Amino acid sequence: MSEHEMIDTQLIQDENSKIENDLLKDYESLGERLERRSIDIRTITAKVADYAVATPTWGVGTGGTRFARFPNPGEPRNIFEKVDDCSVIYQLGRATPTLSPHFPWDRVDNPAGLMERAASYGLSFDAVNSNTFQDQPGQESYKYGSLTHASASVREQAVAHNIECIELGKALGSKALTVWIGDGTNFPGQQDFTASLERYLDSMRQVYAALPDDWQIFIEHKLYEPAFYSTVIQDWGTNYIAATELGEKAKCLVDLGHHAPTVNIEMIVARLIQFKKLAGFHFNDSKYGDDDLDSGSIDPFQLFLVFNELVAAESRNAPGFDPAYMLDQSHNVTDPIESLINSAATVQGSYARALLVDRDQLVGYQQSNDVLMAHKTLKLAYETDVAPIVAMARMQSGGAIDPVAVYRKAGYREEKARQRPASTVGSSGIV
Amino acid sequence: MSEHEMIDTQLIQDENSKIENDLLKDYESLGERLERRSIDIRTITAKVADYAVATPTWGVGTGGTRFARFPNPGEPRNIFEKVDDCSVIYQLGRATPTLSPHFPWDRVDNPAGLMERAASYGLSFDAVNSNTFQDQPGQESYKYGSLTHASASVREQAVAHNIECIELGKALGSKALTVWIGDGTNFPGQQDFTASLERYLDSMRQVYAALPDDWQIFIEHKLYEPAFYSTVIQDWGTNYIAATELGEKAKCLVDLGHHAPTVNIEMIVARLIQFKKLAGFHFNDSKYGDDDLDSGSIDPFQLFLVFNELVAAESRNAPGFDPAYMLDQSHNVTDPIESLINSAATVQGSYARALLVDRDQLVGYQQSNDVLMAHKTLKLAYETDVAPIVAMARMQSGGAIDPVAVYRKAGYREEKARQRPASTVGSSGIV
Amino acid sequence: MSEHEMIDTQLIQDENSKIENDLLKDYESLGERLERRSIDIRTITAKVADYAVATPTWGVGTGGTRFARFPNPGEPRNIFEKVDDCSVIYQLGRATPTLSPHFPWDRVDNPAGLMERAASYGLSFDAVNSNTFQDQPGQESYKYGSLTHASASVREQAVAHNIECIELGKALGSKALTVWIGDGTNFPGQQDFTASLERYLDSMRQVYAALPDDWQIFIEHKLYEPAFYSTVIQDWGTNYIAATELGEKAKCLVDLGHHAPTVNIEMIVARLIQFKKLAGFHFNDSKYGDDDLDSGSIDPFQLFLVFNELVAAESRNAPGFDPAYMLDQSHNVTDPIESLINSAATVQGSYARALLVDRDQLVGYQQSNDVLMAHKTLKLAYETDVAPIVAMARMQSGGAIDPVAVYRKAGYREEKARQRPASTVGSSGIV
Amino acid sequence: MSEHEMIDTQLIQDENSKIENDLLKDYESLGERLERRSIDIRTITAKVADYAVATPTWGVGTGGTRFARFPNPGEPRNIFEKVDDCSVIYQLGRATPTLSPHFPWDRVDNPAGLMERAASYGLSFDAVNSNTFQDQPGQESYKYGSLTHASASVREQAVAHNIECIELGKALGSKALTVWIGDGTNFPGQQDFTASLERYLDSMRQVYAALPDDWQIFIEHKLYEPAFYSTVIQDWGTNYIAATELGEKAKCLVDLGHHAPTVNIEMIVARLIQFKKLAGFHFNDSKYGDDDLDSGSIDPFQLFLVFNELVAAESRNAPGFDPAYMLDQSHNVTDPIESLINSAATVQGSYARALLVDRDQLVGYQQSNDVLMAHKTLKLAYETDVAPIVAMARMQSGGAIDPVAVYRKAGYREEKARQRPASTVGSSGIV
Repeated sequence: MSEHEMIDTQLIQDENSKIENDLLKDYESLGERLERRSIDIRTITAKVADYAVATPTWGVGTGGTRFARFPNPGEPRNIFEKVDDCSVIYQLGRATPTLSPHFPWDRVDNPAGLMERAASYGLSFDAVNSNTFQDQPGQESYKYGSLTHASASVREQAVAHNIECIELGKALGSKALTVWIGDGTNFPGQQDFTASLERYLDSMRQVYAALPDDWQIFIEHKLYEPAFYSTVIQDWGTNYIAATELGEKAKCLVDLGHHAPTVNIEMIVARLIQFKKLAGFHFNDSKYGDDDLDSGSIDPFQLFLVFNELVAAESRNAPGFDPAYMLDQSHNVTDPIESLINSAATVQGSYARALLVDRDQLVGYQQSNDVLMAHKTLKLAYETDVAPIVAMARMQSGGAIDPVAVYRKAGYREEKARQRPASTVGSSGIV
Repeated sequence: MSEHEMIDTQLIQDENSKIENDLLKDYESLGERLERRSIDIRTITAKVADYAVATPTWGVGTGGTRFARFPNPGEPRNIFEKVDDCSVIYQLGRATPTLSPHFPWDRVDNPAGLMERAASYGLSFDAVNSNTFQDQPGQESYKYGSLTHASASVREQAVAHNIECIELGKALGSKALTVWIGDGTNFPGQQDFTASLERYLDSMRQVYAALPDDWQIFIEHKLYEPAFYSTVIQDWGTNYIAATELGEKAKCLVDLGHHAPTVNIEMIVARLIQFKKLAGFHFNDSKYGDDDLDSGSIDPFQLFLVFNELVAAESRNAPGFDPAYMLDQSHNVTDPIESLINSAATVQGSYARALLVDRDQLVGYQQSNDVLMAHKTLKLAYETDVAPIVAMARMQSGGAIDPVAVYRKAGYREEKARQRPASTVGSSGIV
Repeated sequence: MSEHEMIDTQLIQDENSKIENDLLKDYESLGERLERRSIDIRTITAKVADYAVATPTWGVGTGGTRFARFPNPGEPRNIFEKVDDCSVIYQLGRATPTLSPHFPWDRVDNPAGLMERAASYGLSFDAVNSNTFQDQPGQESYKYGSLTHASASVREQAVAHNIECIELGKALGSKALTVWIGDGTNFPGQQDFTASLERYLDSMRQVYAALPDDWQIFIEHKLYEPAFYSTVIQDWGTNYIAATELGEKAKCLVDLGHHAPTVNIEMIVARLIQFKKLAGFHFNDSKYGDDDLDSGSIDPFQLFLVFNELVAAESRNAPGFDPAYMLDQSHNVTDPIESLINSAATVQGSYARALLVDRDQLVGYQQSNDVLMAHKTLKLAYETDVAPIVAMARMQSGGAIDPVAVYRKAGYREEKARQRPASTVGSSGIV
Repeated sequence: MSEHEMIDTQLIQDENSKIENDLLKDYESLGERLERRSIDIRTITAKVADYAVATPTWGVGTGGTRFARFPNPGEPRNIFEKVDDCSVIYQLGRATPTLSPHFPWDRVDNPAGLMERAASYGLSFDAVNSNTFQDQPGQESYKYGSLTHASASVREQAVAHNIECIELGKALGSKALTVWIGDGTNFPGQQDFTASLERYLDSMRQVYAALPDDWQIFIEHKLYEPAFYSTVIQDWGTNYIAATELGEKAKCLVDLGHHAPTVNIEMIVARLIQFKKLAGFHFNDSKYGDDDLDSGSIDPFQLFLVFNELVAAESRNAPGFDPAYMLDQSHNVTDPIESLINSAATVQGSYARALLVDRDQLVGYQQSNDVLMAHKTLKLAYETDVAPIVAMARMQSGGAIDPVAVYRKAGYREEKARQRPASTVGSSGIV
């Protein structure tokens, strides 16, 4: 690896060396146990090492709620500093080689310079995100909608912004545009549901037409927030219809926090795979609404069940299956760098567990309606402690066995706190 | 009307005559008030009088829960007695000229005789319902599924039953088959989501192939119950895809109680209208799950908002818009006849309110983002007390101004309690 | 009334005179109809005219979400301007003679001057609200809690702020302190549930000790937000226990948006009345979470059912029953003045409807388990169009029959837009 | 162990011997790993071996929904056969030495004979359950309530039944009565919330008065079902108040499926412990409502978080902390014996994981608001694969390492299918 480093590689090696023996022992005994289930731990480790999930550039700033935001010291003040922070996540955790930028927050005059800076860390750019849920100075307001606004001129502005995002993305090497709009209503009667969706489709057709041949457009649905009575792309049903109306390059992005309470999300994932419309994921966790908590912190079994669908699709070579993975969390009470390192590892762990499911056995139990054993087949995989696999994958790729510990020892946050004096307004759009 | 009557028409007239003057006064003053809003009360009354909603034959038996069923006296013991009860609902309320039967519960050897009995009351048959969520003696079990069962022979049995339902429906003059399956799972891993839906589509294609040219097939979705982890047709998204895969004659039926908490149901209705897949409704109300409570008893504003979408579609002549309306309630603590009379009137009232919305004004406010006035436009219509309109429509059609009072005075339930000795097992499928 | 006016009273009279005849006609015909139910419309009107609900000072600024805030023109920039706006709400709607201030947002050096300004409009001050969910410059941070913080010094700071709020409230003639804290956690394990509540009780005991004899302390519970895994005062159960532990002056405030999905809020209200712990209300409406939408805009029947409990308590002289009423809404897409006028009228309307319930009849039906008629007794009252009563109460008190129309005609917002240039940061804490 | 056996002990030993070496290896390597965390695996194993959870006698019959019940072959037809089935669960799994009976279902003329039969298997009786949610021949109906019924005579009947349950329980050596009522309403207005609760308290005071000195009464709350608008003991708040009003012997039982969606149940557990009112648990799992699925099958992390509270209380010797543990599941698609064996082991596993939490470290992180590390401290314990501990505890107590496999090999179900011909009605109250 010829990359530039924010953390001293010697520190990583020194710290690893202190606990490497323990890791090897754990890895070996797990390997023996898995062998009894006819699983080769090395194969699993290799797959985990290959698994990557994108970091959202806005995720390295402190998040907040409508009530308050409590910034961390040393917050990144621009996209270059965000890239620096993301490089630390990648250097220590090895799971996040790509970044997903957000415009206009991350707009730069010199995209080539930005790509170069990222590349110096081994980083490249993933799907770009447009923003028509906030106003920009001198523009028409999105208060009453953007791509679905009753006024044609606001819609045109929103379409133009999305097309500009594609241009910005092209300059950064990206291959996809993610479109999330907050459009919706707070009052019954505020807008006509049907007309709003028609306007959405009209606007999106224009954006779609501007997509390069090798690009995709990812549509996000969300039940509510910032609109509290209705949202135009409110669920996967509307998302699916929109993606189908637009064409093959349009797919549905699943954010785990964007569904109604009690909804079976892994089933929605299965449906989108089956009908070739799964774009990918915004990973996070939630208990109530779109809480944007750290992945796997509230319902880790659900995350596993999502990965169970993904690995099943992978193992049957489901046609058109090639999802994009991204973390999308709001870090209100933790150091975002720590949360992102930890969450990427959690996502990898869910993938590892799903790889351990004995799929032939599972199908057999399903065929014979041996319900308890089918369930136990999943549970056996889920309850396997895969920490040694994930840590080994990380170490073998040059990362830290215990990345949060090394991050803290390196004093990165303290250093940035000195270098980046507190701004009065946060670096993210979340204020 | 040459029909046969269960309730003495003289009684109806006598009771009406006692309160007719009050009704006329209320109707007149409401008429004046509506005139100020440029609404002709007679036009509205005529539309309400034309509005019809089907009675489910199983609805006249007492419902229950998994814990207990507390039967009413005089419960109908077979489809002929159910027709008698339904005729009372129609005679007094005038809103329910059709019946929706359920097989095998309502299977008879002599359908012509059944049609004749119904016709003698002015009743005819609406969509027929199949039942593959309960076992029948001598058949393979649906414990682990029906149209989606892992075993081909169970699927074949379920397909054959649905095709038989079409045959039975043809003999009764019906034009649609409603398919609700309880298929799903109680455990993660129990079945493969994708394979289950593929089997569903295969089975349904066979049923679809058996549909006469002028028939439709109505698919119901439901989030959960009787399956508690996953349900094959779990939401409108899957329902829409299934209906689309099957063809033009397949549409999506909305049961108001079959959605996740907080979901915006009126929006789903709008989406299905927009994409020409709204089959119609199973009306009821609910607070928690599929509670099957009386329509409008918990959230009457939601029922109005649903009708607001229906009237909007009607008024813009939305292509393909021709929904079927049916009550689907479980009457656990009321006399089912009273609940059905009252619920039909509640549904009519919601329709009446939606007809009062000033749609030109509404569109104007929506165009100009005058949110408060757009909302107040709906609220003005909703808060209008339409009881005089609904009662007038009923009286003019020969029904009772106060149908529940007349029903009680007629002593129908007491008479049936004598004629129909209590059975130990309920007449409905809900046990 | 010797008060000072923001809206020309001649305009109100002129506008009223144009529609007064219609109102009188509607009022008279409703009166006749109610007479048939043995209800005297004048008695009801008088009660409605006496009913008052407080305006929150923060409510006159535009609200927002964590994603964005889209300010209205002419927003009030300080508490004096907020009082001006609140006076308009009161002058036109006559339902909101008191204001509920929020500290430190509304802190002034000269409370006597503020009281005088308010009094010149006929306004006085209701419960004061403390704020320990946001940081103030130079203070210790509430990022990890306030009254429940693990650090004693942060708790002391939060206690001192609450005691200061009492002092500020005394100077304004207030008699109650409302305490809502955002304290809670975003991660399982972040804090110990038991220790947090113990610290809460310790802190609150100190605040309680500082209450004057004739003051009360109102505790708000909330399921989630800004904390997304757990909240210290998460529901009415914990609220009840806390209020009981503190003593007689502590009671539980019900914000309609602070409960879990599907929870029966009117029942919680009944329980708090029964056990003498109902402090009062923060009225608003919601579909998903704490959406803070306009009262009665989403589920008006629920609002009626809450008032049904209140009127029942009133009519049986429930011991200790004396709730405080306040609006607490976030006006993101409407003019806050319009929303507050309209919401106060909606709340009055719910009260009016609840007054129309025939309580003797209701009890009779309940005693005999005549479920349908008991329900219809409520529905008859709910479906009565009480607009003429509420408008008459308003007109007789010197307000506008159609207050929103008069407000618009008066050009108040346009005038303020000129007088109050847009600030870059909103006047409320919600940014 | 001198007990009588349903499964050949030689079979258990033979089967164990085939996999004992693997277990020992896994146990040893886990032991080493835990040692590094300063945890002695033997201490944990001993605690797990001591942990017991009661089997509900009704749980060995097949459950059902309001739509259907699909019975298993060989269902127990009376309490003696239920005891036989429960003995198999205990013999193989060693976690369930007590049974919780339900009256009148399990009423026998000769309780001494029943106790003897149970004792022959090493079994004894736990809390008894009353049933006033179903009618019994010749009795007044509970259709409109039981302990809260508007009629005094129905309430007296329900009180008498509960007192009889205490008598029956005394004869069986039980020390607690669990009271769950379905009382509530399906319609707004059906009953008065306040009067209903007053009647409940009056009735319960009579039952309480009949409690022997060394008995307790456990009150269950439930949000809904069988009542769908309101339930008298709807949540832990009302439960807590009722238990407090009744006295020290009354406590609150937590059924994991009886709460509103998204509610933080572990926090409710913590509150009840803190205020000395936690009676114990009905363990099960759920995704939507009271689904009564197998414990830990849907949200195993939640089950762990509940145990985390229990172990925390245990480790700080929380005053009055002595909860009763019981499984309460509805086995609709599995063999109930298999589900109960597996669920008891799942519950033990959750306990084991909670024992692995480093509580000193956790408190330290909480004190210093090191949120990520506090969370990781829980996660480290949760993600530990404790299967070897639970299996070792079972084997050392004479049970099977793989109890489901041994159960199947023993052919118990097939044998019972021959001995117990199918009844047409299920043995449980769920029909």
